[in-house]
Amino acid sequence: MGRTHSNAARRVNNFFDLEYQPVLKAVCDLDAARAQAFAAQWGYESCETDWRKLIARQDIDMVDITVPNDLHREVAVAAAKAGKVILCEKPLARTGPEALKMVQAVERAGVPNFVSYNYRRIPAVTLAKQLIDEGRLGRIFHYRAKFLQDWTISKDLPQGGPALWRLDAKVAGSGVTGDLLAHCIDTALWLNGDLEQVNAMAETFIKQRKHTVSGKVEKVGIDDACAFLARFKNGSLATFESTRFARGHKALYTFEINGEHASLFWDLHDLHRLQYFDHRDAGRVRGWRSIHVTDGDHPYMGKWWVPGLQIGYEHSFVHQLADFLQGLATGKSARPTFRDALQTQYVCDAVLKSAKTRRWEKVPKVK
Amino acid sequence: MGRTHSNAARRVNNFFDLEYQPVLKAVCDLDAARAQAFAAQWGYESCETDWRKLIARQDIDMVDITVPNDLHREVAVAAAKAGKVILCEKPLARTGPEALKMVQAVERAGVPNFVSYNYRRIPAVTLAKQLIDEGRLGRIFHYRAKFLQDWTISKDLPQGGPALWRLDAKVAGSGVTGDLLAHCIDTALWLNGDLEQVNAMAETFIKQRKHTVSGKVEKVGIDDACAFLARFKNGSLATFESTRFARGHKALYTFEINGEHASLFWDLHDLHRLQYFDHRDAGRVRGWRSIHVTDGDHPYMGKWWVPGLQIGYEHSFVHQLADFLQGLATGKSARPTFRDALQTQYVCDAVLKSAKTRRWEKVPKVK
Amino acid sequence: MGRTHSNAARRVNNFFDLEYQPVLKAVCDLDAARAQAFAAQWGYESCETDWRKLIARQDIDMVDITVPNDLHREVAVAAAKAGKVILCEKPLARTGPEALKMVQAVERAGVPNFVSYNYRRIPAVTLAKQLIDEGRLGRIFHYRAKFLQDWTISKDLPQGGPALWRLDAKVAGSGVTGDLLAHCIDTALWLNGDLEQVNAMAETFIKQRKHTVSGKVEKVGIDDACAFLARFKNGSLATFESTRFARGHKALYTFEINGEHASLFWDLHDLHRLQYFDHRDAGRVRGWRSIHVTDGDHPYMGKWWVPGLQIGYEHSFVHQLADFLQGLATGKSARPTFRDALQTQYVCDAVLKSAKTRRWEKVPKVK
Amino acid sequence: MGRTHSNAARRVNNFFDLEYQPVLKAVCDLDAARAQAFAAQWGYESCETDWRKLIARQDIDMVDITVPNDLHREVAVAAAKAGKVILCEKPLARTGPEALKMVQAVERAGVPNFVSYNYRRIPAVTLAKQLIDEGRLGRIFHYRAKFLQDWTISKDLPQGGPALWRLDAKVAGSGVTGDLLAHCIDTALWLNGDLEQVNAMAETFIKQRKHTVSGKVEKVGIDDACAFLARFKNGSLATFESTRFARGHKALYTFEINGEHASLFWDLHDLHRLQYFDHRDAGRVRGWRSIHVTDGDHPYMGKWWVPGLQIGYEHSFVHQLADFLQGLATGKSARPTFRDALQTQYVCDAVLKSAKTRRWEKVPKVK
Repeated sequence: MGRTHSNAARRVNNFFDLEYQPVLKAVCDLDAARAQAFAAQWGYESCETDWRKLIARQDIDMVDITVPNDLHREVAVAAAKAGKVILCEKPLARTGPEALKMVQAVERAGVPNFVSYNYRRIPAVTLAKQLIDEGRLGRIFHYRAKFLQDWTISKDLPQGGPALWRLDAKVAGSGVTGDLLAHCIDTALWLNGDLEQVNAMAETFIKQRKHTVSGKVEKVGIDDACAFLARFKNGSLATFESTRFARGHKALYTFEINGEHASLFWDLHDLHRLQYFDHRDAGRVRGWRSIHVTDGDHPYMGKWWVPGLQIGYEHSFVHQLADFLQGLATGKSARPTFRDALQTQYVCDAVLKSAKTRRWEKVPKVK
Repeated sequence: MGRTHSNAARRVNNFFDLEYQPVLKAVCDLDAARAQAFAAQWGYESCETDWRKLIARQDIDMVDITVPNDLHREVAVAAAKAGKVILCEKPLARTGPEALKMVQAVERAGVPNFVSYNYRRIPAVTLAKQLIDEGRLGRIFHYRAKFLQDWTISKDLPQGGPALWRLDAKVAGSGVTGDLLAHCIDTALWLNGDLEQVNAMAETFIKQRKHTVSGKVEKVGIDDACAFLARFKNGSLATFESTRFARGHKALYTFEINGEHASLFWDLHDLHRLQYFDHRDAGRVRGWRSIHVTDGDHPYMGKWWVPGLQIGYEHSFVHQLADFLQGLATGKSARPTFRDALQTQYVCDAVLKSAKTRRWEKVPKVK
Repeated sequence: MGRTHSNAARRVNNFFDLEYQPVLKAVCDLDAARAQAFAAQWGYESCETDWRKLIARQDIDMVDITVPNDLHREVAVAAAKAGKVILCEKPLARTGPEALKMVQAVERAGVPNFVSYNYRRIPAVTLAKQLIDEGRLGRIFHYRAKFLQDWTISKDLPQGGPALWRLDAKVAGSGVTGDLLAHCIDTALWLNGDLEQVNAMAETFIKQRKHTVSGKVEKVGIDDACAFLARFKNGSLATFESTRFARGHKALYTFEINGEHASLFWDLHDLHRLQYFDHRDAGRVRGWRSIHVTDGDHPYMGKWWVPGLQIGYEHSFVHQLADFLQGLATGKSARPTFRDALQTQYVCDAVLKSAKTRRWEKVPKVK
Repeated sequence: MGRTHSNAARRVNNFFDLEYQPVLKAVCDLDAARAQAFAAQWGYESCETDWRKLIARQDIDMVDITVPNDLHREVAVAAAKAGKVILCEKPLARTGPEALKMVQAVERAGVPNFVSYNYRRIPAVTLAKQLIDEGRLGRIFHYRAKFLQDWTISKDLPQGGPALWRLDAKVAGSGVTGDLLAHCIDTALWLNGDLEQVNAMAETFIKQRKHTVSGKVEKVGIDDACAFLARFKNGSLATFESTRFARGHKALYTFEINGEHASLFWDLHDLHRLQYFDHRDAGRVRGWRSIHVTDGDHPYMGKWWVPGLQIGYEHSFVHQLADFLQGLATGKSARPTFRDALQTQYVCDAVLKSAKTRRWEKVPKVK
């Protein structure tokens, strides 16, 4: 994630006209050699091995947090106290209460803050948001999202350590729920409003894995798969599913939303396309439209190449940084803020709780 | 449905070499004119307006039940008592207990019986079954199915009567659960074994509709949409969803099954294709294979045209009739029998119950 | 082909309300046993082994010619002289001059006549025709069609005989040109008007094959592949290509037509879909529409099942027979007639000639 | 194009470990203000308004030519004489003879040289090359490529000037042939070897357009569309087509290659996928594989993100620059060199000639 964020910082001003321009002052890593190598490759001016020192530096205005989840709170709270602008990788924290403390810290300090739910700014997804906001779909009946991967099927894959902390519940907080469903939930809340209640099922297919750090076979604490039913405040019904055991899918994040008049479908594996069905089209020529979201009048695309030439995953990070910097300049916060991301955290918590209680759980509403 | 079944009966012997040959002796309809018109169009030798008379006829060996759901039990039980071979449209009945009586009747009478879950015999679906039975998928982790339609979104659509009895809970038993999910469940049980527990959510978006018979606005008793989580006996997790409010989908029945080694996906809207991913393919050339199921070595396809030329929906009825007649000749019942379909009914009942209790419900196992 | 035609004859009145009803009086085959088996399977009342006797029969009103190409002329001319209504498989003949004699015969005799270019009556193709005739595309710039197969790649495949006469130039007249390009040309003339000039390239990849009849290795006289450039009278440019050496394609007949305002694309491998792009759609939501041609207001589809449920290849034969019978009843000939098919033959001849002369060749216009 | 090249130069060392690192010393533009703005946005150290001065500078090692086609020769020859390393946008020149002079200049000077046929280095295209080189396809029968756009359909679009020089034959040399077909030809020569003869058809649909510079309506000299038949040295047949009048296509560059054993298909509109059909797969599960070319073992992809996350158009420029810099370091030239691109130019010339002579034209072979 350090690479995607650094890449965005280096590129944003080449394509977006912005008042602010990121300067890569310092990169921090516990391992000094790794920090130096990274700094050399990405053009950082200096290195730190203690994030507290980094935060203490007066020449640092903004901190971009891409450490494992278990460190988000501590770093963010300290950065907030030091008055830094903060951009934090998702999920905001391992749990709602942890996230709440982060929200309180940044709001008490009054520092601009942002969480990197980058998929909002894939042009096709932003276009979906525009179409919904224009009322093209009418009353919404259904929302369905899934995020399917297959990279942890092997029993021989260990858990923990720098490369595999996402499989270590203590570090990650949860498995697919915080890692993948959090993306689905963030998009859903953004596109379709509040989720009121959820009913979940989770599973850990591989119960024990060797731990990279301890070297011992340990119980696996994360959810390998999690699916849930849900109801939105607007009366629509939802199904969500995520897994790392869906053979054949590397990162198949899809969502579909069905309204009275129109429907939308998007798929991360072909992220430059949005599928759109409009019932108001004349009957004989009605069909799902495959919109190749690469035109100048599509969100963000006027900044890139010519129609037909696609951009990719990394550009969503450039877009969010551009919006964030633009927000800093205008004083109008880009979203999602820490507070927005707290709501996603509450949904995740309710999902994980429901998977244990085997009941419908209400989602607390961030006021 | 009378048309699809009559069509199958007229065609089956043109394409399949079978010991038995259906003879269209009589068609029965309450409306004599309609019965006569139908008989004329389809070549039935005679008409009846009272199904009891039809069953009483000595020249009738087999009864094919395509009446609305609320009449299935009465007709089937009477036909069984009269010793007729019985083919019944799905769902077998409105409820499990009703279906159980039908099972008891046919088994007591010892008459061959069959339920028309026709999608089993779409060649691509049968191919999926073959690949699973050959063990190509390995341990199964996930199953997901949905059946999406959009034909009842209009508030002005009435309920009840000959054309719209599927919207009348008294006649249909339920809404999408019996009509659409029943198909998904039948396929799932066939492909992936027993479902042990379910957790459902249902909704009726349009609460009141004018009733075609009474002429009055009446409460709608059916489920417009129903989704459920489930666990199979083999340890795999499932999501099922069905609705008639998914704008843009006419009859989008899809299922996907993810195994340790391979995955399968099928879609009724392109029913002649099966998507297959095999992880054992060499890495660089691994990808979802779009199998155009029209070759001579694909199920049933050797009977039809040449490779590349697709068949359609109606052929699934021809195939099931061929298999059923073959079963009659060999004494080995084609599946699903009434007993098989009872299990599907039990799942449907558990789903509808769970939607009310808002809890996980166990699925009783037909012994 | 006898099967597809017999199938159509048996089915047409089940689905279409027509004044005429085909009666399967007799089937003719040189091999008496084969004729009897076919008659038994398809319900023909009698058999003949000499087509002259068949034509001489007074109880035969219509003759449906599905013999190999080299016999079309002789049978058709005799049938015309006998005053029979004639339906002939495509291509009409092996060459233009041969076809011209057939046209003269049927027109002299004044008998209704029709050539089975069945793809015109795939609902998605008929819909394409409607959209073009409504002027939705505007000025046409491009037409491109291809018909790709892969069934003759093996060197071990013999030529000639009942199963493989399509590889025998004496019987078939040509290879892919008469077999596959003829379909592409018929559709093109129908959708986009006259072709004025062509420039072709042909190839025989396997130069010698064992002949099934002689048992000897003989020179292969057919074209395994043929592609041509063309110009339509309306000023549009075209590319056509056909081959039996395109690995991976069983019967990939596709066409695309690009107009000033809109474009269309169709693919036989998913014959129930039409792709439609309309530039007049609002920019941000412009995209190729995948029209699932299964609705009641789509051509022919009101006669079949409910929306979303696809029909297949064979139905195009039912449709053309329905239209032909309707034409008989109203006295308004269904198309393509022999005369229409003669124009296709002239294009084929010009293509084959150009492949030899290596020059642009003009296409004679049937007056 | 200046943007794509600058972007590549700024990014290449972040992702590839290379001995050389581009330093953005100077940008040149006739318009000083535009040069300064560009330099500011992209981080160039200085500006020039006279390319001769740029070439004369001792601190410049490499020149990257992205001017309109009519200036390629003059700039490249001068740069070669000055001993600069040269990277030139495609097409190398307006004509073969012009290109030949450039080849002679760089070879006489002994300077490393390269032409930006960037599509070779889309990972899916490079993967296609690997699969072909591994002999997976067997004997090749067919090659087909097209490059379809729709941006010049409007009659109101003018020709000429900085934005529309591609419509001005004097500047561009030709229309779609040099602009789009050149890409198709470069890929084809790379994947399938020499083209021996071609037979073309070209058209200018809009005969007159207002010229941006003169302000007058002038005859249009470019080809709006061009298609050609061709034969490769390896015996395979080809069709090529390009147009800017194919409504609905923004930049649809596709190629397909059919071999004895396997086939490949690629489409620029979904550039991260390669379609692969292997006849050696077991019959029942044979199908076109949609390879999502985003894995670590796919060409170049190990340098980017994680599997499933796609890159885009611009990355092909990063890849070619990485390969070119790697070639400089190792002394082994990256391809295509000017000499390679000369061959493409000869094919283009033969195509344009054939469109005039209306005959097959041989393609001279660069020795």
